[in-house]
Amino acid sequence: MTRVAILGATGYSALELIKLLLRHPEAEITTLTSRQEGNPSIANIHPSLQGRIDLECHDLGPVAVAARADYVFSCLPHAVTATLVPQLLRAGRRVIDFSADYRLDSAETYETWYGEKHPDPERLGRTVYGLPEWFRAQIRDADLVANPGCYPTSAILALAPLLAAGLIEPDGIIIDSKSGVSGAGRTPKLTTLFPECNESLSAYNVGRHRHTPEIEQVLARASGQPAQVIFTPHLVPMDRGILSTCYAQPRGAPSEEQLLTALRGRYADEPFVRVVDHLPATKDSAGTNYCDITIRLVRGKVVLISCLDNLIKGAAGAAVQNFNLMCGFPETTALV
Amino acid sequence: MTRVAILGATGYSALELIKLLLRHPEAEITTLTSRQEGNPSIANIHPSLQGRIDLECHDLGPVAVAARADYVFSCLPHAVTATLVPQLLRAGRRVIDFSADYRLDSAETYETWYGEKHPDPERLGRTVYGLPEWFRAQIRDADLVANPGCYPTSAILALAPLLAAGLIEPDGIIIDSKSGVSGAGRTPKLTTLFPECNESLSAYNVGRHRHTPEIEQVLARASGQPAQVIFTPHLVPMDRGILSTCYAQPRGAPSEEQLLTALRGRYADEPFVRVVDHLPATKDSAGTNYCDITIRLVRGKVVLISCLDNLIKGAAGAAVQNFNLMCGFPETTALV
Amino acid sequence: MTRVAILGATGYSALELIKLLLRHPEAEITTLTSRQEGNPSIANIHPSLQGRIDLECHDLGPVAVAARADYVFSCLPHAVTATLVPQLLRAGRRVIDFSADYRLDSAETYETWYGEKHPDPERLGRTVYGLPEWFRAQIRDADLVANPGCYPTSAILALAPLLAAGLIEPDGIIIDSKSGVSGAGRTPKLTTLFPECNESLSAYNVGRHRHTPEIEQVLARASGQPAQVIFTPHLVPMDRGILSTCYAQPRGAPSEEQLLTALRGRYADEPFVRVVDHLPATKDSAGTNYCDITIRLVRGKVVLISCLDNLIKGAAGAAVQNFNLMCGFPETTALV
Amino acid sequence: MTRVAILGATGYSALELIKLLLRHPEAEITTLTSRQEGNPSIANIHPSLQGRIDLECHDLGPVAVAARADYVFSCLPHAVTATLVPQLLRAGRRVIDFSADYRLDSAETYETWYGEKHPDPERLGRTVYGLPEWFRAQIRDADLVANPGCYPTSAILALAPLLAAGLIEPDGIIIDSKSGVSGAGRTPKLTTLFPECNESLSAYNVGRHRHTPEIEQVLARASGQPAQVIFTPHLVPMDRGILSTCYAQPRGAPSEEQLLTALRGRYADEPFVRVVDHLPATKDSAGTNYCDITIRLVRGKVVLISCLDNLIKGAAGAAVQNFNLMCGFPETTALV
Repeated sequence: MTRVAILGATGYSALELIKLLLRHPEAEITTLTSRQEGNPSIANIHPSLQGRIDLECHDLGPVAVAARADYVFSCLPHAVTATLVPQLLRAGRRVIDFSADYRLDSAETYETWYGEKHPDPERLGRTVYGLPEWFRAQIRDADLVANPGCYPTSAILALAPLLAAGLIEPDGIIIDSKSGVSGAGRTPKLTTLFPECNESLSAYNVGRHRHTPEIEQVLARASGQPAQVIFTPHLVPMDRGILSTCYAQPRGAPSEEQLLTALRGRYADEPFVRVVDHLPATKDSAGTNYCDITIRLVRGKVVLISCLDNLIKGAAGAAVQNFNLMCGFPETTALV
Repeated sequence: MTRVAILGATGYSALELIKLLLRHPEAEITTLTSRQEGNPSIANIHPSLQGRIDLECHDLGPVAVAARADYVFSCLPHAVTATLVPQLLRAGRRVIDFSADYRLDSAETYETWYGEKHPDPERLGRTVYGLPEWFRAQIRDADLVANPGCYPTSAILALAPLLAAGLIEPDGIIIDSKSGVSGAGRTPKLTTLFPECNESLSAYNVGRHRHTPEIEQVLARASGQPAQVIFTPHLVPMDRGILSTCYAQPRGAPSEEQLLTALRGRYADEPFVRVVDHLPATKDSAGTNYCDITIRLVRGKVVLISCLDNLIKGAAGAAVQNFNLMCGFPETTALV
Repeated sequence: MTRVAILGATGYSALELIKLLLRHPEAEITTLTSRQEGNPSIANIHPSLQGRIDLECHDLGPVAVAARADYVFSCLPHAVTATLVPQLLRAGRRVIDFSADYRLDSAETYETWYGEKHPDPERLGRTVYGLPEWFRAQIRDADLVANPGCYPTSAILALAPLLAAGLIEPDGIIIDSKSGVSGAGRTPKLTTLFPECNESLSAYNVGRHRHTPEIEQVLARASGQPAQVIFTPHLVPMDRGILSTCYAQPRGAPSEEQLLTALRGRYADEPFVRVVDHLPATKDSAGTNYCDITIRLVRGKVVLISCLDNLIKGAAGAAVQNFNLMCGFPETTALV
Repeated sequence: MTRVAILGATGYSALELIKLLLRHPEAEITTLTSRQEGNPSIANIHPSLQGRIDLECHDLGPVAVAARADYVFSCLPHAVTATLVPQLLRAGRRVIDFSADYRLDSAETYETWYGEKHPDPERLGRTVYGLPEWFRAQIRDADLVANPGCYPTSAILALAPLLAAGLIEPDGIIIDSKSGVSGAGRTPKLTTLFPECNESLSAYNVGRHRHTPEIEQVLARASGQPAQVIFTPHLVPMDRGILSTCYAQPRGAPSEEQLLTALRGRYADEPFVRVVDHLPATKDSAGTNYCDITIRLVRGKVVLISCLDNLIKGAAGAAVQNFNLMCGFPETTALV
């Protein structure tokens, strides 16, 4: 059994990760960390875990964590994670980081968008981005994997194949994304209070969302083409799910069928990308590690639609997929 | 125009009250109070009010409020209200209080259930309970009206007629109530965070909800019969609405038709109680000041079902109804 | 009192219309039509109307309707309305039509998008489009008003001022719209069954939605500029509300402030358009006749966001606004 | 591999069953039946199954089914199932029936509540009720198992231990149940249309729900005590989950702790019943095969609260648990 630790174990992504790992025949969760006082049992924090796991959350530092686990999933906030990762790596542990700390290549970009000096800048530009469909080989050997953001996964999986194939223009791409509320986290806030966001829809952080540089950088890295995007996230009154509607200018005059074929070809062997003919709904992939993608050609514009579960393919499922790759387990273990 | 003030103007009941009063031809909102810093415009706090009201919230004491308004609606929390009401009354203002401070007759009961010493005990037992269907005459002349709780209104309107008519036993009444989340207020809390309560249903405060003594006391006062109730509130994933399913033992052997006739007779002239044949849904009364009630006789047990909008008939609408009575305006003004 | 009839009175738009008209001091609903058998009481079809209106639905032809009402609101499906309107107009009645039958100028376009021959083609191109903010003068004198579609209203109100001012390019406009489920009507369908669309989000009719030609035609008519749009509607798990996120290329290099000023200037005197600084949520305008609009400039692209209640400003509220204009009543009667 | 068939494969319970069986290492789904024309692929009916199962639905009779499968799960409606079961059993197949056809002991009771003559009356009274917590031994050897109703499972698991222990009175038990909308099935109906039941709560079939005799009969059989219940189901705006609040008169004067201990003792070894201290929410057991139960003593009345996922522990999960028992597989296979 591979011993794993989860740092910051009380949020929604961590909860989903725990549930996935409880089904994993090769992983044993040995350690959960949290700053909550009194070493609460995780099953008291999340009653859905009652009878399924008997583990307390402790406020542990990297040395203590490294002593108890071989693999560390960090669900800590950005700017916190990068203060702990160096020690974990030095202790020989392999880390999958849910935060944005190691996703960007440039400390300057990080500071611009996250408003903080990066605590561990020398690892930027050298860390593997944990999107298996595009960086599988590097993930296998990595000691540190930057688990992708939920919005970026939905956008990149849809756009990268067409960019790589030179079928769309890399400029002026519009990504209109819609997300369930769990993406906003488990800390009580007025904006995610039930009577505020239920029966309502709104855009937020228009032009200022931190996933923008991540999308652009990874699109470029994955496709070999630079890309410039307009990204507009919206909050939808549902628990989970992201749907991204992407608009791009075709290069040349590809037919809808050609575009669909390019997508299908790129993902033919991927276990968790389903290129579909119909217009997918977020419910189709809710609770799963699938990303569903389709394409339409509308009045000369390419319209890509991509759906996934923000907590699974957009967070915990991708992390387990990365973990499987790093450990040499079958990639779909605990995910189907 | 009658000048009115709203104390604690930023919550959901106050928002609903503002919307109702904006339609009231005889009322002018002159004053809104809040402890929020910076004297925020109420239309910035609630964007739904943009262009409809141009008023700031100020942190004002009772003297300042009394100088600006003839009628005061207090949406402040319990134990706070009762520290301000005496001064407002001494200044000759008439007060409609949304809190529980003046609903109970006994300071001891108050302390038992609310965990605090009552700040103004001498007014207990002498304050009118603002349920127009049962205390209309007293409300007209009152300077202080205790606006009823949302759950109590739904339960009392259903049960009191049958108790008064001696058609049900006063003991062992079960009130199984279900409420939308707005009833829990606008302060961010984990329990009312969208991903926690959406797609979920739970009971809370079983056997310990503070509306229990209020229901019992008012049932007794309204019907002339003491009553003892088991009250179980539940949280439902919807914005607004309360449905109370009440179970009582019939006295004698009344038929379903006799019970329904008793209800109909009691409320024949009431503008806001609809005794219906069908099983009402909370949506039927959502956004209105109606309370819908029906009855079934099931295996010898009386089953009463009562629905209302917790923010309107259960709070702001009842307050406007009381205000109309106190001012001598037509009772339905601004409410239909 | 002005006598009004509502044709096709059992759907959601008609229900909303009834509620608005019940508050209208100058209108009396005399007639409701439906093909449902047994002349059902409208209050039995919609229990929310119990005690508020005592009227049956009858299956009446245009002659019978004309005998009972001066103004006729038709909530019938497209292709049906246009078979009745000519007779109503000949009888001297004035008609506000909720269907798409008289919105388009060309019978050919109608046939292309609606798949049917137009029953009354000679009135196309001569019928007033009932968007008061752009065609107020014509509405006042019209005998037949084509009440706008819900999506078109949200898109046109946002885009037309900037097109008219030459601030955005008329080509390649993207309208990414999100709507609550009531927009899909009250006929039971698998796609709008609760367990299908709850907790889910999906695009539908991508590139094929019938509101596309309506948006283009009216944008051109209102702004004096031809326009070509990519329109993508989405279904959102909420009852009501539309949010349209529109993307356009600026012409020249206007600042965000200049764009916002252009919007504000255009709508300064409009009672039901609120140009706001913040990002509006559909909940802000739910239950009202307001349309909230804001603008952002993102990486050189204009992003317009527009919200309204699809059943009110997107249907019944707009109809009452048109009715007020046609009758010479204050335009906001029954709408604030 | 054990070959299994699912009859009536297009509904929500069948969908959940397919998903569970896809995870089952010993089961192979060989056959899906449906009367839908054109032998549709199940993955086209439920896009969530795309890429997970490649099987068409065919309209097959019992002989054809028996030729293809060893175990048959029937998700057909009541009165249909019992016309097919005899042939399946004669062919030596073992059947798990989701309908109510074999749950009741008496053809007369069946006819009273279901309004139809029972097609296979001689099996009534001899068929095992598939509630493993109470009839495990009989299930193991049964050729036909009547899979329990969702409401009955929630009520019986809570009440039976206390009845069996003589801790509550068997008369006048009130079961106030609340269910998500998936329980109403996948056939489009006005009552389960999104805009009708969203943001609304209502009781339905008060005093007339068909699960009433099932609850009473099985409570008596399980506990050895006759029982008489008042059962009130409610529809809650959520996809899945049942919460039953049960009220009973204690026998003697047991303490809350004694009652909780009795529950805990009874279910100590059960893998899927969690007796908890806190008040459970339906979300805690959503997506799982758990039933969560707690108890409170309120003013001398026993209040039991029980939660489960109506599609899993209330249908497909229970069926797989029964299947595991019948096959001698570990009982929790595919369920944790």
